[in-house]
Amino acid sequence: MTVTDIHPLDAALRMTPQHDGSVHTQAPAAYWNMVGPYGGITAAQMLQAVLQHPQVLGDPLSITVNFAGPVEAGDVRIEATPVRTNRSTQHWTVLMGQRNAQGELVVSTTATVITAVRRETFSLDDIAHPAMPDPQSCERFDTRGAMEWLQRYDMRVVQGAIPKTWDDSGHESISQLWVRDEPARALDFPALTALSDVFFPRVWLRRARRVPAGTVGMTVYFHASSEQLTKQGDKHLLAQASAQAFRNGYFDQTAQLWDSEGSLLATSHQIVYYKE
Amino acid sequence: MTVTDIHPLDAALRMTPQHDGSVHTQAPAAYWNMVGPYGGITAAQMLQAVLQHPQVLGDPLSITVNFAGPVEAGDVRIEATPVRTNRSTQHWTVLMGQRNAQGELVVSTTATVITAVRRETFSLDDIAHPAMPDPQSCERFDTRGAMEWLQRYDMRVVQGAIPKTWDDSGHESISQLWVRDEPARALDFPALTALSDVFFPRVWLRRARRVPAGTVGMTVYFHASSEQLTKQGDKHLLAQASAQAFRNGYFDQTAQLWDSEGSLLATSHQIVYYKE
Repeated sequence: MTVTDIHPLDAALRMTPQHDGSVHTQAPAAYWNMVGPYGGITAAQMLQAVLQHPQVLGDPLSITVNFAGPVEAGDVRIEATPVRTNRSTQHWTVLMGQRNAQGELVVSTTATVITAVRRETFSLDDIAHPAMPDPQSCERFDTRGAMEWLQRYDMRVVQGAIPKTWDDSGHESISQLWVRDEPARALDFPALTALSDVFFPRVWLRRARRVPAGTVGMTVYFHASSEQLTKQGDKHLLAQASAQAFRNGYFDQTAQLWDSEGSLLATSHQIVYYKE
Repeated sequence: MTVTDIHPLDAALRMTPQHDGSVHTQAPAAYWNMVGPYGGITAAQMLQAVLQHPQVLGDPLSITVNFAGPVEAGDVRIEATPVRTNRSTQHWTVLMGQRNAQGELVVSTTATVITAVRRETFSLDDIAHPAMPDPQSCERFDTRGAMEWLQRYDMRVVQGAIPKTWDDSGHESISQLWVRDEPARALDFPALTALSDVFFPRVWLRRARRVPAGTVGMTVYFHASSEQLTKQGDKHLLAQASAQAFRNGYFDQTAQLWDSEGSLLATSHQIVYYKE
């Protein structure tokens, strides 16, 4: 990357305000998944629409994104509405949509966001982070030939990599890895949101069977302050994900993201569709 | 309860359809908390507005409720909108509001709901349920003199009860209990939603200090089918909750609810405000 280049994440987060209060952006080709953009980048765009809104209060506390339908290549419209503003919290509803051939706006994604002005209180991480070797001593996940969005991340898996053979053998559903943007980029709330979705479907690991799967809904709770994100900079995050239940076409995933020193940045949850 | 009485939960779930597509209900006095209805009953009412909607498809898969402001005594309006309907999933946005003295509609609560038509697939619970003594052998939590909503539940705490002394001693943030509606009532999706919020604030347990606290956002992922709920009937559920991080005024909670035979019914997450 030369100094004149813009980071692909920053390109994806560029929003053009419209007269009706919505913003326009693009479905980012640099983060393409199989049939549309990577869900994490869509979530990051939904959050960015709130963060760039002139009325935003404080920093993100939580975001819930529901993936209602595919996002197509091209223009995307995001409408972020501050439904209620209190003294220290603000509640948002967010809709992403695209015009179809008939010019009708079709909603692809819904979200709710809570932002908050936070102040220092009693603070404590109540779960232990896994013991992990230094990221530099871990092998980088080889993304050659993989989908475009995977080129945007440097992942170093310590436990629970994608099975090498699809033999229905069954594994624990937990993965632990180091991960950062590629090229390296200073961490902020949209980047952290996108990083919360980097885990491959737990059902692939649990079953050692590659069935169709896709995230339907995802929540991120932000524990980090802006200062913690700034301090983390572009270093690798420690990330962990596991499933709690697989049932009748859907499994849930719980995930944790720690900074390089082992302090929680975010916790996240998903409900994920799978076939068979 | 005589046969002519209606269960307080069923009373709270009565919705009157309006000409504009919204429904009206009441802020239920039977579930009153300190400054408004118990959050779990508000979540159950938001879900009910979807379930009674003529266009609903399938059963609940997830609900995320954000508590934007207090719900006052009296009339409540809920607007449930099917934003997108796919072949087997449906995405809803839901708003709860009340008229203020000026006749303006003030939003108290936002939600998104996903419903889905599910079919049998590979299924597996990937976390173990705690070993618990029989509910009949556990002492019932004494709710005499406690808030009204607590009278609506039969809770039998096995581990992690509310501290008896507020001495800043510090405890593990995990609670495990048996719980059911009181009077006993057959389990359904709204009841399960309300039950997902029965845990007292984790910060009270962690710190053995009773600081002001309240849920800001809550998600429930439904693993149960209608058949599993019917089979469970009015027996006690096994419930567990713990925190992952306390940071600058907010902590997160992860929770699991199992049926009486130890099969997961739902997993749930919260982000909760606390003071100091």
